Amino acid sequence: MADRIEPRTLQGFRDYPPALMIPRERVLQTAREVYRSYGFAPIDTPALEYAEVLLGKGGGENDRIVYRFLDNGERDVALRFDLTVPFARFSAQYVPQVGTPFKRYAMGPVWRGERPAAGRYREFWQCDCDTIGTTSNASDIEIALVINDLFTQLNFTNFQIRINNRLLLNGLLEAIGIAEKAVPVLRSLDKLLKAGREKVLAEMQSESGLSAEQAERVLLLAEARGTNDEILNIAEKTFDGPPNEKAAEGLRRLRELVAVCRTAGVPDERIRIDLSIARGLDYYTGTIYETFLGDLPGIGSVCSGGRYDNLASLYTNQVLPGVGASLGVDRLLAAMEELKHPWLTGRTTPAEVIMLNFDAAYLGQYQKVARELRAAGIAVEVYPEVKRLKAQFEYADKRGFRFALIAGADEFSKGIWKVKDMQKREEIEAKVEDVLTTLQGLMESGK
Amino acid sequence: MADRIEPRTLQGFRDYPPALMIPRERVLQTAREVYRSYGFAPIDTPALEYAEVLLGKGGGENDRIVYRFLDNGERDVALRFDLTVPFARFSAQYVPQVGTPFKRYAMGPVWRGERPAAGRYREFWQCDCDTIGTTSNASDIEIALVINDLFTQLNFTNFQIRINNRLLLNGLLEAIGIAEKAVPVLRSLDKLLKAGREKVLAEMQSESGLSAEQAERVLLLAEARGTNDEILNIAEKTFDGPPNEKAAEGLRRLRELVAVCRTAGVPDERIRIDLSIARGLDYYTGTIYETFLGDLPGIGSVCSGGRYDNLASLYTNQVLPGVGASLGVDRLLAAMEELKHPWLTGRTTPAEVIMLNFDAAYLGQYQKVARELRAAGIAVEVYPEVKRLKAQFEYADKRGFRFALIAGADEFSKGIWKVKDMQKREEIEAKVEDVLTTLQGLMESGK
Repeated sequence: MADRIEPRTLQGFRDYPPALMIPRERVLQTAREVYRSYGFAPIDTPALEYAEVLLGKGGGENDRIVYRFLDNGERDVALRFDLTVPFARFSAQYVPQVGTPFKRYAMGPVWRGERPAAGRYREFWQCDCDTIGTTSNASDIEIALVINDLFTQLNFTNFQIRINNRLLLNGLLEAIGIAEKAVPVLRSLDKLLKAGREKVLAEMQSESGLSAEQAERVLLLAEARGTNDEILNIAEKTFDGPPNEKAAEGLRRLRELVAVCRTAGVPDERIRIDLSIARGLDYYTGTIYETFLGDLPGIGSVCSGGRYDNLASLYTNQVLPGVGASLGVDRLLAAMEELKHPWLTGRTTPAEVIMLNFDAAYLGQYQKVARELRAAGIAVEVYPEVKRLKAQFEYADKRGFRFALIAGADEFSKGIWKVKDMQKREEIEAKVEDVLTTLQGLMESGK
Repeated sequence: MADRIEPRTLQGFRDYPPALMIPRERVLQTAREVYRSYGFAPIDTPALEYAEVLLGKGGGENDRIVYRFLDNGERDVALRFDLTVPFARFSAQYVPQVGTPFKRYAMGPVWRGERPAAGRYREFWQCDCDTIGTTSNASDIEIALVINDLFTQLNFTNFQIRINNRLLLNGLLEAIGIAEKAVPVLRSLDKLLKAGREKVLAEMQSESGLSAEQAERVLLLAEARGTNDEILNIAEKTFDGPPNEKAAEGLRRLRELVAVCRTAGVPDERIRIDLSIARGLDYYTGTIYETFLGDLPGIGSVCSGGRYDNLASLYTNQVLPGVGASLGVDRLLAAMEELKHPWLTGRTTPAEVIMLNFDAAYLGQYQKVARELRAAGIAVEVYPEVKRLKAQFEYADKRGFRFALIAGADEFSKGIWKVKDMQKREEIEAKVEDVLTTLQGLMESGK
């Protein structure tokens, strides 16, 4: 065909070749198993929905970034830009039948027409879990446990889950008579790490009209440092006398979270109360989570979330409070690459074993043995062509097979095959009927 | 909010609530494991691509059904309508680096704006595996083995993989001097099952201009019945003297497939040579696969595929022959529902165990024990609220938990908890430290 089309992807979109997809599948499978282990049930919703359903009556920030078009039936449709809005729509329809609490996880791609940048794509994966229909702090605490299990299972040892509760700051602002200034104050606080305390103090005065003393009070809270218990005690003391109802509830919830995690056996250093994290402005109303990798804090939070008062008010009058977290799959994969995480092996085959091919006449025997290995949980590729051994070994090395099975005329006549360790470049012999146990032994000793 | 939006999905799109999503995840995970066990590596490609990449220069049937629009940057883009075209584009870019053979699987949603019907959606899942870059029959045979393992692992016992090879019919048409009529003849043959032999005979004469004798010859091939060996012998005899090169190669490949599957240990009744299956018109050039459920043949093939001469000619001059199969996930799920397949349990929780909640003060202990169970692979939900027991049990029944753990003041004071089998309505007691082994025993005996 003379008139070829250039093979290319859209800007901000990418392929996942095997070397990246194998770890992505492992990350998603790990998240799936952890979420399920807490009783979160999977759901899925369409990628494409009525634009009105995803964007509401419009006018929001999402209007700008969404992929929106008229379909062939002139319907105004859009691609989902997160998993939360479709979950809200789903909940309005589904929760009345099944009742609450309702615990779900969802994982899939979302689309945002934002300017692409390093590590930021127009198609990326989200991986969320939420409990809705209850205000119980038990659900807030559970999210922290989920995140802890998730990163432990993802083979991280050095990570911190930073936790705050919006009620604390809101309570303080109320106590000092500036409750209505929560939004600009939060916006200023968000800059604390980057801009520094002096600039934030000045901005809170100039932009939000706080007095110097009020601004100092806010920073006293946000900058509280020490053990979790110490931080919560500092927080309590930022109030004149006993904290008001809102702040007291925030403190109570954070204290209970710290205590339950401790009793349940989560190492203390994993859970860090941090009263400076704000996590966006409007949506969250209680507990807030961010997760940082100790060896790569600069990449930002890789798993975040929080408590919200009402999920689906756009679609139903049923009030659905909830709490959840979202794993940033693509950001995490980028971090794993940078940290040379052991799951990013560069291997491009999911199989450990390759069966070399000496003669098409042996194919039945090759597949017979391969099937026995597969039945025992060992993935085996049978090389499809009868090529010279050098080419087959090169293929095996390139893909990253760990073991090669060698059976040509000699081996068939003796009933003794060779098992080659591709890394050690060592061959050992095994009777045909012992190939499985030999491989199992080698895999066990190689761990 | 007074101005609510009606929560609804687009026509032809659907949500997967937990009762459907739990089996879908199990089907996909099974396919993933089977594909991987043969060395197929996962890839993923974007949902959205340049329309030109997906549709070529246009004019094809796909133009009508594709979701296509201008994005915010005025790019002409479209949602993928299958996983094959993106794989072809991917291969043109990727295979030059990694070489062949290249074995990949991919699973994900595709979108087609066709008229929705029972069991036919505008968004549905495909789940494909292909080996490209080799013409070796070993790869064709492997696809049959993959399908056999896949349906076995999907817990089906009564299924048939019907196999044909296009070369046989093409060889026959060549032998009787009507090679150029392959397309209309195939189109007529496709109607054999529904319209019957007389109508097909007549149509081949009226539409394709075959003589009565030529049409009979074609049907002699397509209608061959008997054991696999008998069918292949009948096929050979439809030729005057030795079959031509094309037909001989088709026969050789089918015979080798039957022999290798037999040696490898696949039950003979699983592989059915069927020279009537045509599987579309243009794309496939060699082996063809269809998979039928013995208890529900009317739903059609649930896993189909074949060999093709060149995957990516639209994008590259590298010739990439290949062979593959695609599992129709949504059709299979519909079949499983109709067949009351044991994986469609109606349960809406992935967890086996619920821990009832008597007092917020016990939460740390509840989660401590739950974490021990989770570490042993048992999924445990801790009920988040301190509600009366009746409500908690109702919730447990509704979701489908199999066991409830009961620990209130009494149980904590004695250090002896209760484990309730929700189906048998029986409670047994266990020391706190024996809850895990007690549950494991109950689960083992309940299998």
